[in-house]
Amino acid sequence: MKKIPVAILGATGSVGQKFIELLSNHPWFEIAELAASERSAGKKYKNATKWVMPLKLNDEIGNLKVKLCKPNLEAKLIFSALDSSVAGEIETDFAQNGYFVISNSKNHRQDADVPLIIPEVNHEHLKLIENKNGAIVTNPNCSTIGLTLAIKPLFDSFGIEMMNVVTMQAISGGGYPGVPSMDILGNVVPFINGEEEKMITEPLKILGKLNNNKIEHADIKISAQCNRVPVIDGHLETVQIKFKNKPQIDEIINVWRKFKSLPQELSLPSAPIQPICYFNEDHLPQPRLNSNLENGMAVSVGRLRDCEIFDYKFIVLSHNTVRGAAGGTLLAAELMKANGYLDGIL
Amino acid sequence: MKKIPVAILGATGSVGQKFIELLSNHPWFEIAELAASERSAGKKYKNATKWVMPLKLNDEIGNLKVKLCKPNLEAKLIFSALDSSVAGEIETDFAQNGYFVISNSKNHRQDADVPLIIPEVNHEHLKLIENKNGAIVTNPNCSTIGLTLAIKPLFDSFGIEMMNVVTMQAISGGGYPGVPSMDILGNVVPFINGEEEKMITEPLKILGKLNNNKIEHADIKISAQCNRVPVIDGHLETVQIKFKNKPQIDEIINVWRKFKSLPQELSLPSAPIQPICYFNEDHLPQPRLNSNLENGMAVSVGRLRDCEIFDYKFIVLSHNTVRGAAGGTLLAAELMKANGYLDGIL
Amino acid sequence: MKKIPVAILGATGSVGQKFIELLSNHPWFEIAELAASERSAGKKYKNATKWVMPLKLNDEIGNLKVKLCKPNLEAKLIFSALDSSVAGEIETDFAQNGYFVISNSKNHRQDADVPLIIPEVNHEHLKLIENKNGAIVTNPNCSTIGLTLAIKPLFDSFGIEMMNVVTMQAISGGGYPGVPSMDILGNVVPFINGEEEKMITEPLKILGKLNNNKIEHADIKISAQCNRVPVIDGHLETVQIKFKNKPQIDEIINVWRKFKSLPQELSLPSAPIQPICYFNEDHLPQPRLNSNLENGMAVSVGRLRDCEIFDYKFIVLSHNTVRGAAGGTLLAAELMKANGYLDGIL
Amino acid sequence: MKKIPVAILGATGSVGQKFIELLSNHPWFEIAELAASERSAGKKYKNATKWVMPLKLNDEIGNLKVKLCKPNLEAKLIFSALDSSVAGEIETDFAQNGYFVISNSKNHRQDADVPLIIPEVNHEHLKLIENKNGAIVTNPNCSTIGLTLAIKPLFDSFGIEMMNVVTMQAISGGGYPGVPSMDILGNVVPFINGEEEKMITEPLKILGKLNNNKIEHADIKISAQCNRVPVIDGHLETVQIKFKNKPQIDEIINVWRKFKSLPQELSLPSAPIQPICYFNEDHLPQPRLNSNLENGMAVSVGRLRDCEIFDYKFIVLSHNTVRGAAGGTLLAAELMKANGYLDGIL
Repeated sequence: MKKIPVAILGATGSVGQKFIELLSNHPWFEIAELAASERSAGKKYKNATKWVMPLKLNDEIGNLKVKLCKPNLEAKLIFSALDSSVAGEIETDFAQNGYFVISNSKNHRQDADVPLIIPEVNHEHLKLIENKNGAIVTNPNCSTIGLTLAIKPLFDSFGIEMMNVVTMQAISGGGYPGVPSMDILGNVVPFINGEEEKMITEPLKILGKLNNNKIEHADIKISAQCNRVPVIDGHLETVQIKFKNKPQIDEIINVWRKFKSLPQELSLPSAPIQPICYFNEDHLPQPRLNSNLENGMAVSVGRLRDCEIFDYKFIVLSHNTVRGAAGGTLLAAELMKANGYLDGIL
Repeated sequence: MKKIPVAILGATGSVGQKFIELLSNHPWFEIAELAASERSAGKKYKNATKWVMPLKLNDEIGNLKVKLCKPNLEAKLIFSALDSSVAGEIETDFAQNGYFVISNSKNHRQDADVPLIIPEVNHEHLKLIENKNGAIVTNPNCSTIGLTLAIKPLFDSFGIEMMNVVTMQAISGGGYPGVPSMDILGNVVPFINGEEEKMITEPLKILGKLNNNKIEHADIKISAQCNRVPVIDGHLETVQIKFKNKPQIDEIINVWRKFKSLPQELSLPSAPIQPICYFNEDHLPQPRLNSNLENGMAVSVGRLRDCEIFDYKFIVLSHNTVRGAAGGTLLAAELMKANGYLDGIL
Repeated sequence: MKKIPVAILGATGSVGQKFIELLSNHPWFEIAELAASERSAGKKYKNATKWVMPLKLNDEIGNLKVKLCKPNLEAKLIFSALDSSVAGEIETDFAQNGYFVISNSKNHRQDADVPLIIPEVNHEHLKLIENKNGAIVTNPNCSTIGLTLAIKPLFDSFGIEMMNVVTMQAISGGGYPGVPSMDILGNVVPFINGEEEKMITEPLKILGKLNNNKIEHADIKISAQCNRVPVIDGHLETVQIKFKNKPQIDEIINVWRKFKSLPQELSLPSAPIQPICYFNEDHLPQPRLNSNLENGMAVSVGRLRDCEIFDYKFIVLSHNTVRGAAGGTLLAAELMKANGYLDGIL
Repeated sequence: MKKIPVAILGATGSVGQKFIELLSNHPWFEIAELAASERSAGKKYKNATKWVMPLKLNDEIGNLKVKLCKPNLEAKLIFSALDSSVAGEIETDFAQNGYFVISNSKNHRQDADVPLIIPEVNHEHLKLIENKNGAIVTNPNCSTIGLTLAIKPLFDSFGIEMMNVVTMQAISGGGYPGVPSMDILGNVVPFINGEEEKMITEPLKILGKLNNNKIEHADIKISAQCNRVPVIDGHLETVQIKFKNKPQIDEIINVWRKFKSLPQELSLPSAPIQPICYFNEDHLPQPRLNSNLENGMAVSVGRLRDCEIFDYKFIVLSHNTVRGAAGGTLLAAELMKANGYLDGIL
């Protein structure tokens, strides 16, 4: 099979670098073009970025000449790691010119005709772009993805009335240079701009029902409080839920452990074998120990117990730059390919 | 005025060291005796402890010979920093032999005849030991103190029905050697043994009413989730409250800012001038920046805002080894002295 | 005594904030004006800066209107916390217009007519500005100051032939936002741009002799290797020395402990009582425990022992933003005032 | 090929856990027995240890019953992760009873008849155990391994007269629970008990020549200064060298890049393809980014430059628990197997 050429917008930032890392040796896709702002365009990639990934930058990629983010790229499948200050217009521009853009930016997440996708959760929302010749597909916010994936089987099985979440989020979520070390070393910053708003709105769209090509948002009362902690990778979240039909603890663990979805059935290259892993140990999961579960694509849950106010409380952990960003986007692209949504550009 | 001689039980541990630090140059109390386990007894203090406080160990204290924790000490006022594995019996033994013991340990906190004191919150509970010749007074758990002090004026003014709290607690709360660095560096540990139980029970006693020399526990539904984070000092807590009579945001900030209590009226040496400080900035308070407010004796609150599930949410920060341990105990001792409870031993 | 009005250039950065912190309640100086770049000029200070000091920003200072860094300020004594990209010209401009500028920037440190001052080490170099009507005085690099202060009495007593130093430097040395957390959390960065060059040249000027109003640089072979470590405040340095006349270990400790200089004799407000403190304990000094010694103005030394290659090896610790920056500058200003160098502007 | 059964002594500690991690799926060896102290013996392994490795503990291993460290084990190849307080006698006991013990402990490293092995550096020292029926082979100290491997090709090509090293060592080197978080979070501890002595003696034996079945230690003047830093894995060291025959910078980089040794020729399963990797970037290598190079078995060097006192200075980084402990030991066992030293026990 010939690999599908892809381009990365915003390739010089930290999400861009993560895309490059995850796409090296990908069985279906290959990096054909890298694009960034005018400051970088025209330079060799290795001279335009400060490479901060653990693996050495591959020479072939390093020598690619960075292009501008204009819809004259040859690759028709676009991964967008653009900053939200510019992503809105650029992504629209590409979509209108026949490109398929899968984006990590927040700009189009709430557009009515744009799917906000977690492949295991709402793959059916991709129907919004069926038969389109160019479209935008978005990846949710990093702290939303782990949470929504973890509650999806509970939502389906028992219904959710209210959900309360407090996050302890890793610094890699802030990009590079991102969070100043003077702010976070030996400290907690109890505020992340715009994050709480995303966490109380995005799950409602993701868990919504597609009806007549419209997404009816789910009806869950959500409260979120977001904190930054001195952790490299892995967002940890405490979650409390009031169900519509209160299950037993065993039933919850059971639906978590059994949960599989379309990416698993299709054996997509980046799909975790078991998307949700429950830990029995009191002190697990922990960001440093467990974020990399299944190459960072599985979410970990633990400490499920009775709650004095809600029905139950538990913790969720997910890798914010893999499952919560580049890896999630890549899985969405794989799903689009496997389901034929990209046939028009092949 | 002649200073009151005091003894410290468990003087070699980290809370014991903090007592020594806080009692150096105290206007009312002076360290007369240091006691610890058999392993340390008989040694000079400086050879029995690994001193880890920032200030150098004063020579006079360093050369004190460590005694056993037996009720044959000359000082009648006892600060107990004993480990809970031994504190129960030893403290009882002292109290029965005419000593006044102020303890940081959990053992006697829920005893019906033992006050569980936060001086600004429930000084009237000291009446439980009135006219006693020897007694135990206890200091609450470190994460309970900041929280309960912060909600006290809200409880009094508006009534509290439900309270939900998630903590991010500093490593100094685990003592020394305490939390292994391999567990917490660049990590969060989502479990602290026994902590959640303390947080949902202790506030009820502290906020309880004294009636016929019995404390009627308050009736608040509390849920707590406790996490350890890589911070040296300062427990940060996210709090959500449903009130009996929902106030306006301004009213809450107002009662916080106006709040003073008996320690302030008496100008006790360790009392903060303003016990509760509200920060307007979105990103404050933070453990590393604000824990030392008023020498670590004030609590900081911030980010008060509407909650989608409860009435309001906000954050509370307090210094866990000062206000939450040795400093709180010292303030309680000052209050006992000022109110005449120690007259019998003077 | 009427306080001397001072202005701070670059007041919105982290060194500028430190100046404000140290100058609040200073017995001789008072902040009259704050100046910064065009981006900040015209705004109230509190709106022009992101205040990151532990103490709350005082209202009076917070409401000062930020001015431009032009030599039309009323205060004649200027503390410069300017970035080196602009400090060179601006400081010259002020000096030529009759101002006394004491600077933390590197730009003029090696100018032949500019003293590079550590008050306890080379106060006599101030003669370079005697009878001048406006001048620049510079503060050395933060990692140079601790080292040079620690070796000054050894240099005087025994002569130094060679000195080898490896630093482990705190993140606050990088300013704010400075070092990205993604670079330094759980990591060491073995490179600090330009730092090694400063460390091998600045001590030679500071330890030089003033002869005919010229400084003859000292003749010591120095090698330096500089690393950034995840520490908030406090530069720790391993030092190895080959002396001209090799002393005994006791003699070295003795000259350290006895060392006093002009700032001590004059009892300058910011002068440490004992500038150099030797620790006997194997594991001390440590940045987090000991950087604040004497309000951050003393240097700590320890672990003096035989070296297999040089004569001796030991460690030096100093507070990089106090003694190594704003505090050192302030002490220099106090010395200038006490010695009459500022009489012309009073 | 039937796998060789191995036993791990001290299996419950952190080095023991690392052995288990590295031996899972090893092509030549399989874990047959786990042994530890009386406190653990008789329990299932999963109940005897607090598992802190990122990968989940495999059930088969977790259910092994822990044995005592007595020479009645069935496996004849023994990996020792024993604490040095007990390793001396136990290892001797095993060796005298016909076992081959490969040890991480310091006890026998300087025994005249015990090889101190870095497979790429001094594989010929294994001749000391030729034809023996039971023997001890030792792995050097973790900070010695990276250093000695990095200088081996320089030592061979140019001769080394003097070497000066300062280390910044990761906390995982202290085992578990090991370094208290209160000591190291946001701090540097400038002392590691016994470490400097190991670094100035072990390289001399490792680089020594085997003559008439005796090792003639190399003659290099070494000075070492050891520091603990808040890094999880990876010892970073600054190195300065005076050569016998001073090479050019290019020549040094060249011998590093070309260096291969017997483990590479034999393609041993754990051997890195390129044992020494030189980084051109000023700011590399860094512990968090580069310790895992070649699965943690390669050493990284960088910043080679002229030194004002020695000939050159540079930095070395190696993974202290992989190359510097369990991985190095495993490679030594592979080498012994490949060279027939284990034929007697097969």
